[in-house]
Amino acid sequence: MNNDYTTLFSFLSETEHSILDYFSKSDLLSILKPDDIHDSVLSYLQRPAKRLRPSVLLMACGCLGGEERVEFAIPAAAGIELFHTWTLVHDDIIDNDKLRRGAPTVHEAMSERAKLTLTSDSNLAQEYGRDIAILTGDIQHGWSITSFIDCALQMSVDPMVILQLVRHLQTHVIGNLVYGEVLDVQFGIQNAVDMSGINEEQIVNMLWLKTGILYEFAGLAGALIGINAANFDDSQVCALKQFTSHCGTAFQLQDDILGILGNEEELGKPIGSDIREGKKTVIVFESLKNADVDERNIILSTLGNKHASADAIDEVTSLFKQLGGINRTKELAEIYIRKALPHLDEIPDSKYKQLLILWASFMINRKF
Amino acid sequence: MNNDYTTLFSFLSETEHSILDYFSKSDLLSILKPDDIHDSVLSYLQRPAKRLRPSVLLMACGCLGGEERVEFAIPAAAGIELFHTWTLVHDDIIDNDKLRRGAPTVHEAMSERAKLTLTSDSNLAQEYGRDIAILTGDIQHGWSITSFIDCALQMSVDPMVILQLVRHLQTHVIGNLVYGEVLDVQFGIQNAVDMSGINEEQIVNMLWLKTGILYEFAGLAGALIGINAANFDDSQVCALKQFTSHCGTAFQLQDDILGILGNEEELGKPIGSDIREGKKTVIVFESLKNADVDERNIILSTLGNKHASADAIDEVTSLFKQLGGINRTKELAEIYIRKALPHLDEIPDSKYKQLLILWASFMINRKF
Repeated sequence: MNNDYTTLFSFLSETEHSILDYFSKSDLLSILKPDDIHDSVLSYLQRPAKRLRPSVLLMACGCLGGEERVEFAIPAAAGIELFHTWTLVHDDIIDNDKLRRGAPTVHEAMSERAKLTLTSDSNLAQEYGRDIAILTGDIQHGWSITSFIDCALQMSVDPMVILQLVRHLQTHVIGNLVYGEVLDVQFGIQNAVDMSGINEEQIVNMLWLKTGILYEFAGLAGALIGINAANFDDSQVCALKQFTSHCGTAFQLQDDILGILGNEEELGKPIGSDIREGKKTVIVFESLKNADVDERNIILSTLGNKHASADAIDEVTSLFKQLGGINRTKELAEIYIRKALPHLDEIPDSKYKQLLILWASFMINRKF
Repeated sequence: MNNDYTTLFSFLSETEHSILDYFSKSDLLSILKPDDIHDSVLSYLQRPAKRLRPSVLLMACGCLGGEERVEFAIPAAAGIELFHTWTLVHDDIIDNDKLRRGAPTVHEAMSERAKLTLTSDSNLAQEYGRDIAILTGDIQHGWSITSFIDCALQMSVDPMVILQLVRHLQTHVIGNLVYGEVLDVQFGIQNAVDMSGINEEQIVNMLWLKTGILYEFAGLAGALIGINAANFDDSQVCALKQFTSHCGTAFQLQDDILGILGNEEELGKPIGSDIREGKKTVIVFESLKNADVDERNIILSTLGNKHASADAIDEVTSLFKQLGGINRTKELAEIYIRKALPHLDEIPDSKYKQLLILWASFMINRKF
């Protein structure tokens, strides 16, 4: 595989430019009131991000519809970024996360602002932060649907394509995303420590529910807008959908590796966060499986310990490498990319297909 | 005005039957997983409720489109009930409410269930309840949009009508609803006690943002589906929209009166809840305006006091009557109904128009 990602990065950057431009022209901006809602709705969107989901949507669209239709799909690309964003805002409340993309999460930022402007009662301020974050996600959810609709109203995409796509997003995709999120929360409570009672397949399925499904939707939406017909059974559409679905799972597996090995700047959160949060990953599962009693005790005493020292984090990180947790995850990610690539065989060659191939390679080689 | 509501109640009951039937046939039911999500998404929908918003949507539709088009609008009626429902689920988290329609709120019910099935840690159980409630609202939000879309996909309503309506719902309506909710939360924190710095107009505007706007949308959506054209400027469409908007504000004013004078069964929550929560209403505002120093002290020492005694609640309730708070609110509700009715002048007579007139009367005479 080609490891020169220059053309991919340049496409990601064009996508970012296009969707930020679309956001900046939205009639929604004028009804984002009061200021705390306005600022919160825009905050994650304005932070540096890779914009992978909208880019994949545009690439899939280009594969079947060419250059001109990619222009038509820009509101949908903005829509999938917004959809992803509201799930992040609500997940951050659920996970009690304090940082996202190197800056405070919405609930955290608004809680801090409330302390300065609204109340000296820190419990009230915390509730206020949570309230604003819930409502921020709700508005972004609405804006996401509006953006998809704009493909029909402003870009002359067939209204039936948009209606069917939004319906699919609002039933199948949201249902599975929420299912994955709840399983994750329940695992976190029930198996706070040793991951007993879960197997590797279940962990990977949870990754797919939480991440793969939205990449799958990116491929599907781009493909249908590309052919401008609501033909969900079209073989090329299905091929692009399967391809992006598998790559999405690989993305999350690689994300879990970077969550252990990445540095603070790359992660946007402190080193060791995933370990201190006790995040349930294939890395942890595989390492525990291969650990002796002493190693197991070291891992279990650090995992999920919010106050674990930097030395303890280092030790567990080393164990994850030695015990094969990192390697097994890397291997799985590669398996998913290998499963994904043959689906592209029936897609005609184009610069967009080459971008998708490059993106697949980036999924398992990326360091950020 | 006619005060025999038999035909109105029979229409509300038909609406309830139609939308529950629509829900029961939804393909979404099979993807509501796990059980906690399935049960939470359905819980408020299955509790006894008046179904005013979907009924108003169907009446407005019937006014301009007649009997046959009312059938076509049933998925949209289900959609507005779902939209209202997700806002209730999220509002209940924000207001820390424990009861809704006579039974535990979603976050409360799921927190209690978690204590039995997931964890003995009551903080973790409470967080779990909150998490499930956030995600429940998110799913209902999606299902709401899906239902509107079904009007086009299953009922041959013009796709452009549905796209424009959903766009309006997801920008204008959601933006104003959230604005009203945040103002309410901010008022609650900043003016915990004496309502200084707020005037009557601001309170009524907040009622409109939180309640009137969704009734306005019910009128608009029904009217546009009735004419089956996305003609937002049509004078009859605008008339129905204005009519339902004003009646919606009257509905909320009457709701505030019932919140003080209603009994537990009618309220679905304990007597005095609105006083103990310190709810900011025209009743409180007007009463404080007319109170002498002693009366003011009595009101302020009870309002917002979660542990206020039954005697204190009785005393404040009496003061709200004596000081004109109840009467002023009743008067305002009547003013809004009087503003609403002339808009119906340009709507041709029909059983649906008669139902809307009856509904307007019910808004200010209802006891539940």
